[in-house]
Amino acid sequence: MSRLFRKSKTVGLPPGTVVYTGDKKAEKIKITLIDYDEKQFQEREIINIEECFPFKDKPSVTWINIDGIHETGIIEKIGKHFQVHPLLMEDVVSTGQRPKLEDFESYLFIVLKMLYFNQDGKTIEAEQLSLILGDNFLISFQEREGDIFNPVRELLRKAKGRIRKSGADYLAYTLIDAVVDNYFIILEKLGENLEDIEDELVTEPAAETLMDIHNMKREMIFLRKSVWPLREVISSLERGQSAVIKEPTLIYLKDVYDHTIQVMDTIETFRDMVSGMLDIYLSSISNKMNEIMKVLTIIATIFIPLTFIAGLYGMNFEYMPELSWKWGYFAIWIVMIVIGASMMLYFRRKRWL
Amino acid sequence: MSRLFRKSKTVGLPPGTVVYTGDKKAEKIKITLIDYDEKQFQEREIINIEECFPFKDKPSVTWINIDGIHETGIIEKIGKHFQVHPLLMEDVVSTGQRPKLEDFESYLFIVLKMLYFNQDGKTIEAEQLSLILGDNFLISFQEREGDIFNPVRELLRKAKGRIRKSGADYLAYTLIDAVVDNYFIILEKLGENLEDIEDELVTEPAAETLMDIHNMKREMIFLRKSVWPLREVISSLERGQSAVIKEPTLIYLKDVYDHTIQVMDTIETFRDMVSGMLDIYLSSISNKMNEIMKVLTIIATIFIPLTFIAGLYGMNFEYMPELSWKWGYFAIWIVMIVIGASMMLYFRRKRWL
Amino acid sequence: MSRLFRKSKTVGLPPGTVVYTGDKKAEKIKITLIDYDEKQFQEREIINIEECFPFKDKPSVTWINIDGIHETGIIEKIGKHFQVHPLLMEDVVSTGQRPKLEDFESYLFIVLKMLYFNQDGKTIEAEQLSLILGDNFLISFQEREGDIFNPVRELLRKAKGRIRKSGADYLAYTLIDAVVDNYFIILEKLGENLEDIEDELVTEPAAETLMDIHNMKREMIFLRKSVWPLREVISSLERGQSAVIKEPTLIYLKDVYDHTIQVMDTIETFRDMVSGMLDIYLSSISNKMNEIMKVLTIIATIFIPLTFIAGLYGMNFEYMPELSWKWGYFAIWIVMIVIGASMMLYFRRKRWL
Amino acid sequence: MSRLFRKSKTVGLPPGTVVYTGDKKAEKIKITLIDYDEKQFQEREIINIEECFPFKDKPSVTWINIDGIHETGIIEKIGKHFQVHPLLMEDVVSTGQRPKLEDFESYLFIVLKMLYFNQDGKTIEAEQLSLILGDNFLISFQEREGDIFNPVRELLRKAKGRIRKSGADYLAYTLIDAVVDNYFIILEKLGENLEDIEDELVTEPAAETLMDIHNMKREMIFLRKSVWPLREVISSLERGQSAVIKEPTLIYLKDVYDHTIQVMDTIETFRDMVSGMLDIYLSSISNKMNEIMKVLTIIATIFIPLTFIAGLYGMNFEYMPELSWKWGYFAIWIVMIVIGASMMLYFRRKRWL
Amino acid sequence: MSRLFRKSKTVGLPPGTVVYTGDKKAEKIKITLIDYDEKQFQEREIINIEECFPFKDKPSVTWINIDGIHETGIIEKIGKHFQVHPLLMEDVVSTGQRPKLEDFESYLFIVLKMLYFNQDGKTIEAEQLSLILGDNFLISFQEREGDIFNPVRELLRKAKGRIRKSGADYLAYTLIDAVVDNYFIILEKLGENLEDIEDELVTEPAAETLMDIHNMKREMIFLRKSVWPLREVISSLERGQSAVIKEPTLIYLKDVYDHTIQVMDTIETFRDMVSGMLDIYLSSISNKMNEIMKVLTIIATIFIPLTFIAGLYGMNFEYMPELSWKWGYFAIWIVMIVIGASMMLYFRRKRWL
Repeated sequence: MSRLFRKSKTVGLPPGTVVYTGDKKAEKIKITLIDYDEKQFQEREIINIEECFPFKDKPSVTWINIDGIHETGIIEKIGKHFQVHPLLMEDVVSTGQRPKLEDFESYLFIVLKMLYFNQDGKTIEAEQLSLILGDNFLISFQEREGDIFNPVRELLRKAKGRIRKSGADYLAYTLIDAVVDNYFIILEKLGENLEDIEDELVTEPAAETLMDIHNMKREMIFLRKSVWPLREVISSLERGQSAVIKEPTLIYLKDVYDHTIQVMDTIETFRDMVSGMLDIYLSSISNKMNEIMKVLTIIATIFIPLTFIAGLYGMNFEYMPELSWKWGYFAIWIVMIVIGASMMLYFRRKRWL
Repeated sequence: MSRLFRKSKTVGLPPGTVVYTGDKKAEKIKITLIDYDEKQFQEREIINIEECFPFKDKPSVTWINIDGIHETGIIEKIGKHFQVHPLLMEDVVSTGQRPKLEDFESYLFIVLKMLYFNQDGKTIEAEQLSLILGDNFLISFQEREGDIFNPVRELLRKAKGRIRKSGADYLAYTLIDAVVDNYFIILEKLGENLEDIEDELVTEPAAETLMDIHNMKREMIFLRKSVWPLREVISSLERGQSAVIKEPTLIYLKDVYDHTIQVMDTIETFRDMVSGMLDIYLSSISNKMNEIMKVLTIIATIFIPLTFIAGLYGMNFEYMPELSWKWGYFAIWIVMIVIGASMMLYFRRKRWL
Repeated sequence: MSRLFRKSKTVGLPPGTVVYTGDKKAEKIKITLIDYDEKQFQEREIINIEECFPFKDKPSVTWINIDGIHETGIIEKIGKHFQVHPLLMEDVVSTGQRPKLEDFESYLFIVLKMLYFNQDGKTIEAEQLSLILGDNFLISFQEREGDIFNPVRELLRKAKGRIRKSGADYLAYTLIDAVVDNYFIILEKLGENLEDIEDELVTEPAAETLMDIHNMKREMIFLRKSVWPLREVISSLERGQSAVIKEPTLIYLKDVYDHTIQVMDTIETFRDMVSGMLDIYLSSISNKMNEIMKVLTIIATIFIPLTFIAGLYGMNFEYMPELSWKWGYFAIWIVMIVIGASMMLYFRRKRWL
Repeated sequence: MSRLFRKSKTVGLPPGTVVYTGDKKAEKIKITLIDYDEKQFQEREIINIEECFPFKDKPSVTWINIDGIHETGIIEKIGKHFQVHPLLMEDVVSTGQRPKLEDFESYLFIVLKMLYFNQDGKTIEAEQLSLILGDNFLISFQEREGDIFNPVRELLRKAKGRIRKSGADYLAYTLIDAVVDNYFIILEKLGENLEDIEDELVTEPAAETLMDIHNMKREMIFLRKSVWPLREVISSLERGQSAVIKEPTLIYLKDVYDHTIQVMDTIETFRDMVSGMLDIYLSSISNKMNEIMKVLTIIATIFIPLTFIAGLYGMNFEYMPELSWKWGYFAIWIVMIVIGASMMLYFRRKRWL
Repeated sequence: MSRLFRKSKTVGLPPGTVVYTGDKKAEKIKITLIDYDEKQFQEREIINIEECFPFKDKPSVTWINIDGIHETGIIEKIGKHFQVHPLLMEDVVSTGQRPKLEDFESYLFIVLKMLYFNQDGKTIEAEQLSLILGDNFLISFQEREGDIFNPVRELLRKAKGRIRKSGADYLAYTLIDAVVDNYFIILEKLGENLEDIEDELVTEPAAETLMDIHNMKREMIFLRKSVWPLREVISSLERGQSAVIKEPTLIYLKDVYDHTIQVMDTIETFRDMVSGMLDIYLSSISNKMNEIMKVLTIIATIFIPLTFIAGLYGMNFEYMPELSWKWGYFAIWIVMIVIGASMMLYFRRKRWL
């Protein structure tokens, strides 16, 4: 549940105070620096944050990636050196942000949600990714080390595609693209889940099916909340109003934008399907109740009158002429069979049998 | 289900990589070339894609139609020769696109969905149609060979109507019109389906009726998802902002736009009707339960008291004066008939009979 | 059902082909011509469509009314003579159009829906009315002869009000006003229907009530679909952007616009009420079930224990001391009466009685 | 019900015909004239409408209030003298108007709904108030005499506040403010009603509760329909585009606008609450059914097996060893008590007891 | 309930009359004055409101906080001295306002809602906060003394952060930020409540669960009503159209705006979850009913036929051959066990057991 609302730890502190509000997800902050242009490429792990600072003024593209944001001291140092507004650094470590874009002329601040599907609990987990994109540098903050960006690093190392020939804005695009592409994997998982639930519904709906539907619904709410604002973010980027984003990158951003729309479209489709499943579940419960009632009613309405007749001739009145008839017992069997059979016919005509 | 979300095969590849994400629907790619102007007309099947290239710079209108998009090499070659952005060629072969329009000044890129109604499963199947529309050429990519465009070819061969006198933009309009007209056939099929379900609902709603309603709902979701973005696409075309679309074609595009609105209108109407049917189904289940309960209650409430009376005089107490009365048995029959009859009256007054 | 979607007869034909898609509603096309200005008035039935053509260039206002649109030859002739775009003539005879307005500078093309309430089936029937409004002429196409425009003809004949002093635009307004005023009659009929259903709901809801509610809902969907786009049409007219509409007519169009809004308002209100009725119907079914269950439960829970007691003393054990007690039978009656009475008390306390 | 749609009495008449469409609510038209400026004040009842006419050209503010609009002759005379468009005079007497504002440069035409709460039927009744606001005169038309405007008259007589120092626009504001303030009284009544229904729901929901909820819903629909368009009306006034409204009055109109938003806000809140109540009602019915079923099931499942056992030993087989056992009867009692008690335990464990 | 609509006490009074419409929440009005700039700071409690007046024209920032608004005389005096429009002073004491912003060039008038969570009744309570923000002064009106602003006072006293170096606009921002931060605490409480309800739903849904869900829903409606208009207020502030708000404060207001969006996002998420819970509650009731019916049906359908057989051989016919068979009683036991067992098998196959 706590995924769904921001913790209020900073209440009462002056604005701009950098306080980490998430759970501590990584043991130690890990900083990696990649610096490249068309001709050269270097990649190394950084121990002391000050090592990055000289790269700020080099013309080559510098990507500083920070895994783990709980050591707020380091975060603040970076912020100060790259002259980023303290409110933004507060946002970086406050993990309940919505995806958003802020434009400070000389740099852009972008917040995204990276999503992971937890197969055990069939829940989606979110991690906050903050990007600070300047003319020739990109700083990315993740809550913990992940593998979504490995293919990007691979492209950089092998100088595949346009990436080494392009600037920091194209690098930012590649990261955003990786994040959005990852949403499709989540959707595929959810889609398989939906198929499983639909199968259950057709064969044997149980009380757990209801809980599964409910869980799907909750994950969908969570997913939607994480993706919805992204549309606006990428749309703003793609419209090319920022000086940091160069013109050739715009068409790529338009492509990511299309993907985001596809993700949202699919989420809406899934929502519609989940709510349709709930309707089916509810009416299948009603159908089951109907079936139970039918069995009860058939048995009861056949045997209650017969039992009455048996009870009738179990009475101990001294004067009951039928009892002494020779064929009385036989006749009563006939009567009972006729009653039972006509009941059966009645139920067949009503299509209960 | 897999119709409803895009496969994520391209995750991790550099953008612009042309990877086919659909199922392989055609055996072999089939390329047909039609070249015409008011005076001449030629049509031939192409084996080697390079044969098309000389037509690029001829003033006559050239229509290259490619059935089958799984041989990505050919697709890439065309893209390169006609100087189309690699991201678009990626979109051509990635079959989970939403309908969309992209304007690159010298050419337009249009993605549409062609829909087929599969009579067996009562499902709608979609196929992606991508159009690249230049000043004097039109390249169309289909997933497999279809017959929707045959009437267009016929018009071209017989030089009927305006088509041979008009440019590539009018040809594109004719194709889009054929696609949209085909939606009406789908709607007619769905409408007949709806009528069948409504009849079932009135005569004999069964558990299958519920599944039919559910399926209709899912098809409607799918249909809507395919058609909804089309509105925006055609509206952009019709507003005439692109240089590729000539002024006389605009009124025809306005006509297709009206048709698209009609399609969406009908989809919305069908959705409303399907949700109304679900309500009726649910309350007809409740009505049925009521009827079952009535039968049970009538039988039980009539015979339970009578059985009690019979049980009463089946007791073996030594001193039970009624048992030795001469008219005791007769009297008990009277009592029972009175009780039964008054029960019947009660039920009649309650209108249960 | 077929009211709800356009037939697809024109699929595969070149655009602009005039093909009638409705059912044949009139035996023969009937053409009437009315020509008037402030001083003169003539009205006559036309056999040969060419008789109308000279009126095109007269300064007086000419109203050509065509009842029946299945003889497409005549329609095409008119279209050609008045230089109307062939696509529009296709729209005139294609009866599944949405209400729409198209502005061709020298003339306006308006499509409306005339609605009739069929008292038998309690359904609404629609007929398409197409208007071609030029500077000094108005051509109206109806599917069959109707009486909605008779009051307008009467006003013209008797030169009542402003109508003979005004131009063709005011005549068009008068026709649109007649169509919209007719919607209020439909709404009144539907309103009476709603009142009947509400009365049924309060007194004796039956399975037919559900079907009545369902039918009302469907008619409302149909009505909405016919009226909703009209708002936009009249709003465009009233904004006075067309040269064909003269300034003094605008205030009258504003008045029709207000009426259209009122119609839509009432439709929305009715929709809300119908959906409220469904809720009531469903809960009245539940209430009825509750009542049935109560009767069953009261009878069963009173008599089942008593029958058990009677059965107890109907056992044939040799040693059962109670059976030989002198007041045994009397005592068992007391016990039974006490049990029955306390059950009754229990039910009264639970307010089931 | 007839509150909810406009009567169609004017169908077929030329536009601008003044026909009263409401019920006759007042015996006789009552006309009062108030004329004032900062220094003088006169108020008198008018018998002959012509008495008002000289005031038209006086610089002092003149308020002509007409209670009763069924004598259309008088209405038409006023309209002609004050040069008001005949269509407006038709609107004045046609009581099914939506709230609206029309700006004719030299005067404004405003239609509002005055609402009264009818305590008997717990229904809201509406009355149409039409205002014609000129530079120095205000004409108000009510369907019957009411007391909402008495405080305004009192302010005028006693020269309290700004009213005597301000123009006709401020007077119009004061009337509109009185009408909107009156809505809060309606909301308070409805709020009390809602509280009563909520109390009933918690203590003892009955079938009448459902009807109460339904009635509330209908009143809310009616209220919404009356108030919703008002927002636009006052918003247009407050934006100060009309020359008739002087600048110092704008801030007061902004205040009324805020009140209107508050009214609509509260209506939406009430709607949400009513729909929540319906959910509760429905599930409380289900809960009740559950309770009934539990009682039936407990009694039946305890006694049906016991009755079977009793029946078993009531059989008349010649060879039944148990019957002749000395402790047979006693043993059977033990068996029955054990069965009954274990049933009770089972129900307790299931928390049905 | 009365939280949800404005009291109508001012009906009939001239506009601008300052009448307190809330409940009397504080014993005595408490006025505190804080005056500061970068160098000096003074804070004192004020007995006589006139003491504040000299600070109006000092260049230092003056914050006058008034706790308690029921002594309307004092409120009016402040309004007059600071030249605030009387309508605003009426708004200050009329506690049913929606959050709003009014811009009077030389000062801004802002109304907010401070919310408190009442742990006992699990209800949210609202208090109105009105701010009058001038170039160098801020007047705040609260309904009673609260502790939300204590951290702000602390920041001022200790000259922490930017606050002492900034103007009155930054002070206003700090107060608004404190109010919005407090909403997160409310959301956390509601989130915990939601988790409790979800737990109840999974383990043991009772009738109280329904009431809890209903209460959550009502609180959500109330919360939404209080927060929704705030978005517009802060958005207007943040767009920087007022001269009172200086440019450096805008980025801080943007930050509060983001927080407000987060609050509304979470409210929407909670609403979705609550409505999902209602669905689960309803279907868990149905499931329970199913289970009860199953128990009844199993017991009844097993024993009713057996009881019939026992009744059969309890009949007293003279000629019943089975009764005298030696193994008759034994045989009947066999028959009964077979019937019972096959019933059990049937139920097992239907998965009722």
